[in-house]
Amino acid sequence: MHSTKGALLSRRVLALRKRFDAASLASFGSDSSSHSYSHESRKANVLPALGSAALLAGAGLYLWKNRRVAYADASRPVPKDVESFAPPERKDLPTFSKDEIGKHGKDSKRIWVTFKNGVYDITEFVEAHPGGDKILMAAGGSVEPFWALYAQHKTEEVIEILEGLRIGNVDPKDMAKDKGKFKDVNDPFNNDPARHPALLVNSQKPFNAEAPPSLLLDNFRTPNELFFVRNHLPVPEIQISNHKLNVEGLGIKKPINLSVDVLKKKFKSTYVTSVVQCAGNRRADMNDYKKVQGLMWTGTAISNAKWTGVKLRDILISAGVDPNSKDIKHVHFEGADIDPTGKPYGASIPFTKAMSDEVIVAYDMNDEPIPRDHGFPLRLVCPGNVGARQVKWLTCIRTSTEESPSHWQQKDYRAFSPAVGFGDQLNFQSVPAIQEYPVQSAFCSPAPNFKVDRSDETINVAGYAWSGGGRGIIRVEVSPDGGKTWHSAELEHDPEQDMDHMWAWTLWKASIKIPENLKTLDLVCKATDRAYNTQPETASGIWNVRGLLHNAWHRVPVEVKET
Amino acid sequence: MHSTKGALLSRRVLALRKRFDAASLASFGSDSSSHSYSHESRKANVLPALGSAALLAGAGLYLWKNRRVAYADASRPVPKDVESFAPPERKDLPTFSKDEIGKHGKDSKRIWVTFKNGVYDITEFVEAHPGGDKILMAAGGSVEPFWALYAQHKTEEVIEILEGLRIGNVDPKDMAKDKGKFKDVNDPFNNDPARHPALLVNSQKPFNAEAPPSLLLDNFRTPNELFFVRNHLPVPEIQISNHKLNVEGLGIKKPINLSVDVLKKKFKSTYVTSVVQCAGNRRADMNDYKKVQGLMWTGTAISNAKWTGVKLRDILISAGVDPNSKDIKHVHFEGADIDPTGKPYGASIPFTKAMSDEVIVAYDMNDEPIPRDHGFPLRLVCPGNVGARQVKWLTCIRTSTEESPSHWQQKDYRAFSPAVGFGDQLNFQSVPAIQEYPVQSAFCSPAPNFKVDRSDETINVAGYAWSGGGRGIIRVEVSPDGGKTWHSAELEHDPEQDMDHMWAWTLWKASIKIPENLKTLDLVCKATDRAYNTQPETASGIWNVRGLLHNAWHRVPVEVKET
Repeated sequence: MHSTKGALLSRRVLALRKRFDAASLASFGSDSSSHSYSHESRKANVLPALGSAALLAGAGLYLWKNRRVAYADASRPVPKDVESFAPPERKDLPTFSKDEIGKHGKDSKRIWVTFKNGVYDITEFVEAHPGGDKILMAAGGSVEPFWALYAQHKTEEVIEILEGLRIGNVDPKDMAKDKGKFKDVNDPFNNDPARHPALLVNSQKPFNAEAPPSLLLDNFRTPNELFFVRNHLPVPEIQISNHKLNVEGLGIKKPINLSVDVLKKKFKSTYVTSVVQCAGNRRADMNDYKKVQGLMWTGTAISNAKWTGVKLRDILISAGVDPNSKDIKHVHFEGADIDPTGKPYGASIPFTKAMSDEVIVAYDMNDEPIPRDHGFPLRLVCPGNVGARQVKWLTCIRTSTEESPSHWQQKDYRAFSPAVGFGDQLNFQSVPAIQEYPVQSAFCSPAPNFKVDRSDETINVAGYAWSGGGRGIIRVEVSPDGGKTWHSAELEHDPEQDMDHMWAWTLWKASIKIPENLKTLDLVCKATDRAYNTQPETASGIWNVRGLLHNAWHRVPVEVKET
Repeated sequence: MHSTKGALLSRRVLALRKRFDAASLASFGSDSSSHSYSHESRKANVLPALGSAALLAGAGLYLWKNRRVAYADASRPVPKDVESFAPPERKDLPTFSKDEIGKHGKDSKRIWVTFKNGVYDITEFVEAHPGGDKILMAAGGSVEPFWALYAQHKTEEVIEILEGLRIGNVDPKDMAKDKGKFKDVNDPFNNDPARHPALLVNSQKPFNAEAPPSLLLDNFRTPNELFFVRNHLPVPEIQISNHKLNVEGLGIKKPINLSVDVLKKKFKSTYVTSVVQCAGNRRADMNDYKKVQGLMWTGTAISNAKWTGVKLRDILISAGVDPNSKDIKHVHFEGADIDPTGKPYGASIPFTKAMSDEVIVAYDMNDEPIPRDHGFPLRLVCPGNVGARQVKWLTCIRTSTEESPSHWQQKDYRAFSPAVGFGDQLNFQSVPAIQEYPVQSAFCSPAPNFKVDRSDETINVAGYAWSGGGRGIIRVEVSPDGGKTWHSAELEHDPEQDMDHMWAWTLWKASIKIPENLKTLDLVCKATDRAYNTQPETASGIWNVRGLLHNAWHRVPVEVKET
C-alpha cells in the first residue's frame, strides 16, 4: 500500500518530504498502516483522487514524534486569527441538516465532517491525512473535539486545506440545538461535566471512560480531554472561591484550613509528570482468561499528565508535623464526592510516601486548571501508586496511626490470591491495600485482529509501559510468535526524570519483521523495570476475583494476508 | 509411613508429644517425610528397633519452627559443661581408624558418625532423629559441623542420647591428622579459610558454594557456616588491628581514615536482618530452559543474616557530605580482594540508597565477627539490592557523579534482553547495572523427583521468598498441577520489619492435597510482593546470556506412588 501511495505523490509533496530524513519517513508511513480501521472498503474511491489529496496533505505533513512535541510545546503561540477562525458563510454552497450530515459516517461512500458552521467532504482526504484515519472518529459529525487536541491544526495552511474540502453550511437551526437539553433535577449525575466524544465509555453514571488506543500515543502527556476518567460517584460542583482544604490529625500542631488561593500563595509551586492508572486497567483481558467482577476496562485506563501544585510534605510540615515522626503511619485523604450514605470518597497512603519529594496536592493538569472530571480544584497526585489513592476534589488531609477506614481503602482495591474464588468469603484483612503498581505494558497499535499484508514485510507496533514506585522501564520486548523470539523496542522516556524516579510512562515502538512461516502473528509485548521485575506470561498466577492489577503479557493476534 | 511410626511410639514419647498441639504435630510428622533421601533401603533394619530409638528421640523432640527460634535465641545460656563436653575415654570399647569409620556412610548397612573422640552407630536413630535424616549428611564422618548449627543439641539430655549410641573411640593417631596439611605457597587461594562440609561447592578457586536446600529453612537467620559464599577472588587475610576504611571523593569535606576500632567507637551501632542473594541464583534452572554462561547455582545462592554495624549515612555525614547533595549521584566501594592486575573488587550504589536508613557498614554477622568468607572485618550491607553491590573486606568508600568504573559494575551484573544471543556484541551501556532484585521464591523441600505415597494424601512443601527494595512478600501460592489450581502458603515474616521495609526473607510452608487424577505432581511456587509484582511463568521473557536474575516460577516434579 505504501509503495502505491508513494508513486502517486506529486512533486510538491516530494519536495516537502525532503525536509524529513528517511528514518522519520519510515516512521510516518508505518504509523498510518497500523490502525484498526480497514481501508479496504474505500480504496476504489480513494485512489484516483489521491494525487490532489496528497498535495493538500503535504502542507500538514508531520511525524508521530513531532506531533507529540507540538502538543507539549505550549510556548509556541497560535496566531489569534487562527485560534478564533470561523468558516465564512458560503452562499454559493447548499445547507445541510445535522441529520443529513450524520448519514455520512465512516461506513458511508462519501464521508462528511463539520467544523463550526462548515460542512466538508473528507472522503479523498482520509488517506492523506497526516494524522491517519483517526479523522474517521469525527465522520458524520464535528471534528472540533479532535481538532482541538492537536496544535498542528492551528496554522493558516491547515485552515486553507480544510476550506478546500468545503461542500456546504450547517443548517443554522441545528447550530442552536443541544443548548437547552432537558435535565432531570433528581439525577445526582445531572451536573456531571461534558466529555470528549472520543472517550470509550464503560459506565455513564458514575462516569468511567478510557481513551481510544489509537489516540493515546499521540501525546507524551495525555491531553486533559482524553485522560481516562474513573469516577466512583457524581462529580461534585465546586466553586473555587468557596473550596477549603483541611489538614488535621495526629501530630498536627497547627490544624490548617486553606483556600485554594492561599495554598497557591503560601507554598512553593512544583510539578511532576506522572501516570495515573486504574487498578482495573486491562480487566477485560483478565476476564477473557477467567470471569472477574468489575468495569471491563480494556487497556487504556491509564494516562500521563504534567501535574502542578505544592508538595504534600510542605503542607504537613507547615502544619507542625515532625518529618521523622515514628507515630504517624498513614495519611488519609477525603474528596468532595459523597456516597448515598453521606460518606466522602477516601483513601490513604503510607506516611513515608506522603513525606517524599514527589507527592503533591495539584491544582493544574497540563498547565490548565484541573478539569472537573479529574478533581477540580485540587487533587492528590501520588506518583508511582495506583489511581485509587490519588483522591480528587480534595477536601481533607488527616494524619493517623491507621489506614483510612474508607470503603475504598478497606473493602476494595485489594487483590486476592488466585486460590480465592467467587463463592469464597473475602477476608480483606488478609491482603494489603494496593499502593505501588506492578510493572505494566500494552500495545496501543495494532488493534486486535488487524490484518497485515505479507508484502509489507514488517509490522509497526507501539504502546506504553510503566511501573510503580518510580522504577523506570529499562526494556520493552516484542515477540511476533507468542514469546519464542523477541525484539527490543525503541523507548521514549521523560527526559526530566531518571530511572529511579520515573513517574511518567515510557512510550515505545518497534518495526517487527513478519516471520515467513506464520499465517497469524501472536504479538506479545512485555516490559522490564529498574528492579528487573517483569510481567507474568498469563493471568494464571495473578487472576483474582475483582480482576485487579492485570499485568500479564499483552497479546494481540494479527492475520497475515498473502498478497 | 506416619501411621506405622505412630503406632510404634512408646508411651513416654506419646506423653511428651502431648505438650504439642495437633497442628504442630502434623507439621513435625510431615517435615521428615518431605526430604530428598529415601528411607526405603533402611526400613527393614529400622522398624524392630524403633521403639527404643523413638524413646530416646523423645527427649529431643522439637518442631520445625521451634528449632529456628532456638537458633535465633542467643539469650538462652548453654550450660558450660555442655558447651565444652568431650566424650569420656571408653576403654571397654574398640578403637576405629577414620578410614574404617568412613566406610559406614549413608549407603552402608550400619551408619556411623564421630563426635570429637567418640564413635557412634546411629543406624536405628536416624528414623527417630528430630531433625530428620539431615543427620545422614555426617554419615561416615564427624557430626560436629552440623551439631554446632543447632542450639537444641546443647543440652544434657541430648548428650545422654548420643552417648547411648557409643560403639567406640576414634584412633588417637587419626585425631592428630589434618593439622599440618601441605600448602602450595604459590597458590593465591592458599590462605582461604576452612569451610563447612555441608556446603554445595560450585567452584573451589575462587570459592563459591551454596547451602543444601534441606538445611536452609532450619533457621530464619542462616548460620554463618551455611551462608552461601560468592567470592570473585582469593579471600584476603586481614589483621583487624591494621585494617583501615577510607572515605573520600566528591563533597567529602573531611576525608576519613578509620580503624575498625574507631569506627565502632565513633558511630552508633545498629543492625538489620537482611538477605544477600547472588544475581546468579537459580541460574541452573535458566540453563535448563536455554544455555547460559556462569556458575551453575541451583536455588540456594541466597541467605538471610542479622548484620550489625554503623549506618553508611552517618559515616558520610561525619565526612562532611551534604545529605541533600544533588551533585553526588553514586557511592563506590572497594574491597581488599585484589584481581591479578592489582585492581580491587568494586561496585557502587545510588547516592539516595546510600543515604537511606538501612544501608550499613557491618562488622558482625549473626552477633559474631563477620567470618573471613563474608568480608572480615567490614562489609557493606545494602538491604534490598543484589549481592554483588554488598562489597566485602571493605577498604574504601568514594562519593562520585558516576557509577563505579569497576569491571563488576560495568561489564558484569547487567541482564540483557532475551533478544541478545551468544554471538551478539554485548553493549553493556544499553542495560543498567543491577541494583534492586525482582521478586523471587523457590522450594527447598521437596527435592526434585521426590516420591510421595498416594496414601499420604497431602504433601508438605516449604521454601523461601524475597523481593528487592524492601518490598515485603504479601503472598506465596503453591500449585500441584503446574499452575491450574493454587493454594496459599503460610508465611513467616521477620516480626521486626514492616511490609514496606522488609529486608529479611519470608519463609513459607504449605500442606498440599495430592490431586486424585495426577500421577506426577508439577509443583509450582510463586510469590507476590508489596507492589503486587509477581514472578514470570517461565524463562521465556527473562532469559539472558549471562543467566542473571532468574525468577521464573520454581517447578519441582514429584512422583505419586500408588500404595
